[in-house]
Order: sequence, then structure tokens, then C-alpha cells
Amino acid sequence: MTDTTCHMSISLDGFVAGPDQSRENPLGKRGREVHAWHLGDERANDADEKAKGWLLRPRGAYVMGRNMFGPVRGEWDEDWRGWWGPEPPYHAPVFVLTHHAHEPIEMRGGTSFHFVTDGFDAAYAQACETAGEDGVDIAGGASTVRQALAAGVIDELTIDIVPVLLGAGERIFEGEAALGIEPVEVLHSPLATHIRYRRVG
Amino acid sequence: MTDTTCHMSISLDGFVAGPDQSRENPLGKRGREVHAWHLGDERANDADEKAKGWLLRPRGAYVMGRNMFGPVRGEWDEDWRGWWGPEPPYHAPVFVLTHHAHEPIEMRGGTSFHFVTDGFDAAYAQACETAGEDGVDIAGGASTVRQALAAGVIDELTIDIVPVLLGAGERIFEGEAALGIEPVEVLHSPLATHIRYRRVG
Repeated sequence: MTDTTCHMSISLDGFVAGPDQSRENPLGKRGREVHAWHLGDERANDADEKAKGWLLRPRGAYVMGRNMFGPVRGEWDEDWRGWWGPEPPYHAPVFVLTHHAHEPIEMRGGTSFHFVTDGFDAAYAQACETAGEDGVDIAGGASTVRQALAAGVIDELTIDIVPVLLGAGERIFEGEAALGIEPVEVLHSPLATHIRYRRVG
Repeated sequence: MTDTTCHMSISLDGFVAGPDQSRENPLGKRGREVHAWHLGDERANDADEKAKGWLLRPRGAYVMGRNMFGPVRGEWDEDWRGWWGPEPPYHAPVFVLTHHAHEPIEMRGGTSFHFVTDGFDAAYAQACETAGEDGVDIAGGASTVRQALAAGVIDELTIDIVPVLLGAGERIFEGEAALGIEPVEVLHSPLATHIRYRRVG
């Protein structure tokens, strides 16, 4: 089995992105607040640095939702190549869920975007085949993580709990489910509590 | 200022009690699962023991919602004295929010229940006056904690985050608010991550 990880930053009221996502606000209104711990806030400490290492560790392939890939909706009517500039931080194939077919895009530094039109399970299967021993990461956004949790494929779930209330936005946990996970490592800073959960049993 | 604490156990999807609270299920369906860490689960460890110490430390007075006090609704048409038997674990005055007046009830061990009909602020003021230096605890349930958060009176908020999904129930966080809190102590066991937050600034 390919080890599958997922790492999300979340507000204390359970939102991984604010409401009204847009080209100007890719994380929704106030969504950046749940990422302050790795985006240069001066209160960040060694715990945040270590959690950033978890977030950025190399993986063999990624699964990503289209709304995380970009703001284009419906047909691909512009040449969008992701939010991350010419060299995205993935350095591996990224399988993007979409309803609209698109040729693969090669970026600098080893990242390539592959567009999958037949659903989460198909994208995840391709990611596993590509990644092999190097493992798959479910990159987000909220909808893709909900699908991964429902499919029961996540072996390691890391959440950074940030003590802010967004009041509205996107949640990753919905419905009753047996998660079967336990905290195995927990770090904290003034900005966040980083909990690394692993599947048990 | 009277130091004011609040300690709640919460599921990963944000519920402090399950749905359908009743006399048989005071914490709602599956609500006990978020309390396994202090209710005898054999996986509990020293972290849970220490967090239990936080939960049970003596306070000068408590504020509690009527639904936490008992299942009686509307007029007091039965002799209800709380869920906790003849000697409740509070050992101090408990101010119970209700719309229906009731004489105070003296219990063994120093606990007394006082019924307040003019709202959260009045109950909290009475609790502060009674407690003085010994501090006030907001005992719950969810509605009372929401009122305390909205009023901005909580100096120390402890949450035990339990990796289960209840899917429905009672939340304590609602609406946008500046919490102004930071984690100051974090412990974990297989059953829960205990985060003690303090107000900053």
C-alpha cells in the first residue's frame, strides 16, 4: 500500500478556507490567517518550522482539487498554470480533479499537472501507481480532502489548529465516520497546534 | 478581574455533544466518546491524567446552562438535583441559567445550585462576586459557552480534541470573533490532544 498523507491548516471553528474564494483571495476571506504559522508571522517558532518540514517533505505524487489548482471554472478558457509560479513546490506529478479534459502541463523543478476527469478514485489510483514507495499526498482543497476521508485512504493526517474563528468557509470533516486515527506527534507555538495523526489497527 | 476558565471536550468535527440529548443520553448520541479520555478508557495515559487535573481543579464558582444541569424543561415539575448524585464534583456555588425561578439547592460537599433567570451576564456577575480570587469556571453546555465566548469573559480555554467524527450535535464556536488566545500547554494521548489556551495582550 502506498502511504498516503494529508496536511491541512484549520481554524478553531473548523474551516480550512474562508468564504468567497476568488482570484484575489484564493483561500477565501481571512483564509490566510490559518496559514500565518508558515507564511512569515514573526511569532512562529521551532514547532512551526518543524511542521513546515512535514508540509514540504517530498512525496511521489499529489491529488488536488480543481479549485485549489486555480480560479478558472467550467471550460479551460485561459492558460492557467497554477498559483505557484514557474516552479511549484510539489516537484512531482500532481493529479488535478476536473470535469473538463486538459493536456498535461510540465513545470520547472519536476512538477507536472495531470488532469483527471473520472473522479477521485481514478485520480488517487493514478497517483498511487506513479508514486509507489514515495507515497501520495492529498494536497487539498476541502472537497478533495472530504472525498479522501470518505474513501478511507489517508494513513497520516496532520492538522494545524489555529486559534482564530473564521465564522464561515470550507470544512473538511462532514458526516459520521470512524477515523481510526491517533495523535502520534504534537507541537505547538503561539500561532498553531500541529497534530500529526496516524491510522491505527 | 476574576480569572475565568472553561474546559470542553470536542470531536475533530467540532461537536461538544452529540445530537438528540435525552435523560438516557445526557451528552447526546455518541457524546460520551469525546469524554473517553477521563471516563476510564484503558488507553488513557499520564497526559489524560494531567488534563483531568485541569478539569477538576477547585474553582470559586461555576456558571452552567439548564440543559447541562438536567433534562427537565419548562416549569420545574419534578425534584431534580443534577446528574451527579448527592455530592456533585463542584464543591462550590453553581449558578444555573434558567427562565424559571427555583429556590437554591444545597448538596453535600459544598456544592450549591443557584438559579438565575436574568441571563448570562447576571449569572456571571454573581459567580464573580462569589468566587473572588478563586476564579469562575464556565461549566457548559454548548449554549452557555457560546454566550461566554461572545461576552469575551474567558481567560483560559482548554479543549480536549478527540479524533472522532460525531457528524452532528452541539458546537461551541459560532460566528466571527477575535479570540485573542494562544496555546500555552499542550499534551496528548492516543485518545485526545489537550490544548490549554490563555488570553494574550
